[in-house]
Amino acid sequence: MTRLVATYRVRSDAGAIEARARAIAVEQSVEMPLDAIDDPAILDEIVGRVEGIEDRGGGQFAVRIGLAAATIEADAGQLLNMLFGNTSLHEDVTLIDVELPAEFATGFGGPRHGIGGLRARAGAADRALTCSAVKPQGIAPGRLAGLVERFARGGLDFVKDDHGLADQAYSPFAERVAACAAAARRAAAATGHSTRYVPSLSGDLERMRRQIALSRSEGVDIVMIAPVLAGFATAQALIRDNPDFAFLAHPTMGGAARVAPELLIGKLFPLIGADAVIFPTYGGRFGYSRATCRALAGNARTASALPIPAGGMTLARIGEQLDFYGPETMLLIGGSLLTARERLTEETAAFTRAVAAHCYG
Amino acid sequence: MTRLVATYRVRSDAGAIEARARAIAVEQSVEMPLDAIDDPAILDEIVGRVEGIEDRGGGQFAVRIGLAAATIEADAGQLLNMLFGNTSLHEDVTLIDVELPAEFATGFGGPRHGIGGLRARAGAADRALTCSAVKPQGIAPGRLAGLVERFARGGLDFVKDDHGLADQAYSPFAERVAACAAAARRAAAATGHSTRYVPSLSGDLERMRRQIALSRSEGVDIVMIAPVLAGFATAQALIRDNPDFAFLAHPTMGGAARVAPELLIGKLFPLIGADAVIFPTYGGRFGYSRATCRALAGNARTASALPIPAGGMTLARIGEQLDFYGPETMLLIGGSLLTARERLTEETAAFTRAVAAHCYG
Repeated sequence: MTRLVATYRVRSDAGAIEARARAIAVEQSVEMPLDAIDDPAILDEIVGRVEGIEDRGGGQFAVRIGLAAATIEADAGQLLNMLFGNTSLHEDVTLIDVELPAEFATGFGGPRHGIGGLRARAGAADRALTCSAVKPQGIAPGRLAGLVERFARGGLDFVKDDHGLADQAYSPFAERVAACAAAARRAAAATGHSTRYVPSLSGDLERMRRQIALSRSEGVDIVMIAPVLAGFATAQALIRDNPDFAFLAHPTMGGAARVAPELLIGKLFPLIGADAVIFPTYGGRFGYSRATCRALAGNARTASALPIPAGGMTLARIGEQLDFYGPETMLLIGGSLLTARERLTEETAAFTRAVAAHCYG
Repeated sequence: MTRLVATYRVRSDAGAIEARARAIAVEQSVEMPLDAIDDPAILDEIVGRVEGIEDRGGGQFAVRIGLAAATIEADAGQLLNMLFGNTSLHEDVTLIDVELPAEFATGFGGPRHGIGGLRARAGAADRALTCSAVKPQGIAPGRLAGLVERFARGGLDFVKDDHGLADQAYSPFAERVAACAAAARRAAAATGHSTRYVPSLSGDLERMRRQIALSRSEGVDIVMIAPVLAGFATAQALIRDNPDFAFLAHPTMGGAARVAPELLIGKLFPLIGADAVIFPTYGGRFGYSRATCRALAGNARTASALPIPAGGMTLARIGEQLDFYGPETMLLIGGSLLTARERLTEETAAFTRAVAAHCYG
């Protein structure tokens, strides 16, 4: 019987924790009273098993539960369902980690391009990669394309859509991708450096399939998806069916305070095929600690996915961020670059130069 | 400019709350520094607007933010993205409500069958409806069908799959639905009362489409979906394209401690078309309060969706639960009925009789 082992952080009295752990094991497997189950095979093989309880102090416990892989197979939606489905409704439980047997994890496919594929796209073998985002929400495709071109002329490796850009009337996906991809090509022809434009997918699976087909016809070979929003099963299907595309995963709706970000973003997004994962770096707009960011980035790399710290990055922080993350990373500076306005290309060039010139301590 | 108004509960110092509110308004709209935006139309129409800040005491504030409907249109995934996407990553913010202009809400379709359609399926005009679930995870289709038949012979209106049942090797969807639907038909032929079997959908949009087609061919006209797991856009598409089906929404992965359950389950699931919403009732296995349950059920009904309290319901609680929820509800008793084992049909009959005989105070 293959089992995965989920670890939950549980707030509890010491006297109640054993019963609490058993209750989670039941909730995440058969969800019914054990004394109503008469089949010994179900009791042995399917019912969740408490593998360990560790007192972390301050009324917090780490509870390890073994869950049968047979309940999940290789369905990414079902993975979340069995890991945290109903238990996510409990205020006193956070899913903090999961150990996946190798033969089980293999079924999900993992990153198809990963760090090597992104480096190849950027033509950059050792340095950190660079990225920015076009916004704001509300401006027309032509103006977004103008930003792409200026970013590209500044030598960025990747320019992505703001995750708020979908298929709105003011910026239809088809027009936006055509304009932005053309802008990236123009810049590459002028500078000799290839900048990848990264459209953001939205809607249901069929709409996303059409968006990928359209992107492909414009020469695009990388897109962004938000797995929590799209649904894990949808992200899994898109990635499986488009092996020529690399996928960036956006954490929107990640509710990462309830699912530990090093797990959700660092492990699970790559598990279903994200080649790179965007996350809010420490000291920016979000409350992630250095330890969380280090663990998240480490988990992603272990799975061959590239960490993309973002969310409050500035030019002034490049050196410090590269010292922290090392070269196996992609820096994403969005809003702070856009404040340069007419000096956007120059500021962008300063960004790309700083990354190229960085000496890793 | 049509705007929806989202309300967030924010933990903050009184001195910092105004800046915090403005930061949320920016995060959930343009996600960039305002001084980098030179288009007055974007600043006026697209950037989120702080509509009010109310001190709730104890370092908690209710912050109301107006968000442009133009950024969302009628894309359910994008709705979540703009309501709570990045802000869901902040530990000190909970999305607690949203006011939707009527013309905006209409675009999402709402329940296609709703309370009336479920009552019609059950042939029950005034009383509360009844439901149970087949489990455990791991047993074969034939045994699940045996449970369906025994539940149906007890007079239940609906028997649903456990939300953990997907398309696993031990219980493939096609076999399970064929067996369970036949069991429900057999029981109806014997008793004269029609019991609806409710399969649980899983996987991506295409797999779910196939599951619905297969269910339809077995005479099934109602299914269960987990919108948070499936993705709101996927749920929206399925509901739109299968107007003959009623949909139950399951809260798994709802992380409802971060998104207020009266909103996520009570308002948003119906908004995209759930005809009924399952939620953990007070006093059961989950920590929802009476006030939360009352608000959730009220919201669902306002949208013409039927509330289905569950999660720790027992025969002994039927009277109390019906007094609390009234007849416009569906009671779902799962595990506790299954403990009856060989007396399952009788216990189920006791359940259905108690509901039929209840006098609403």
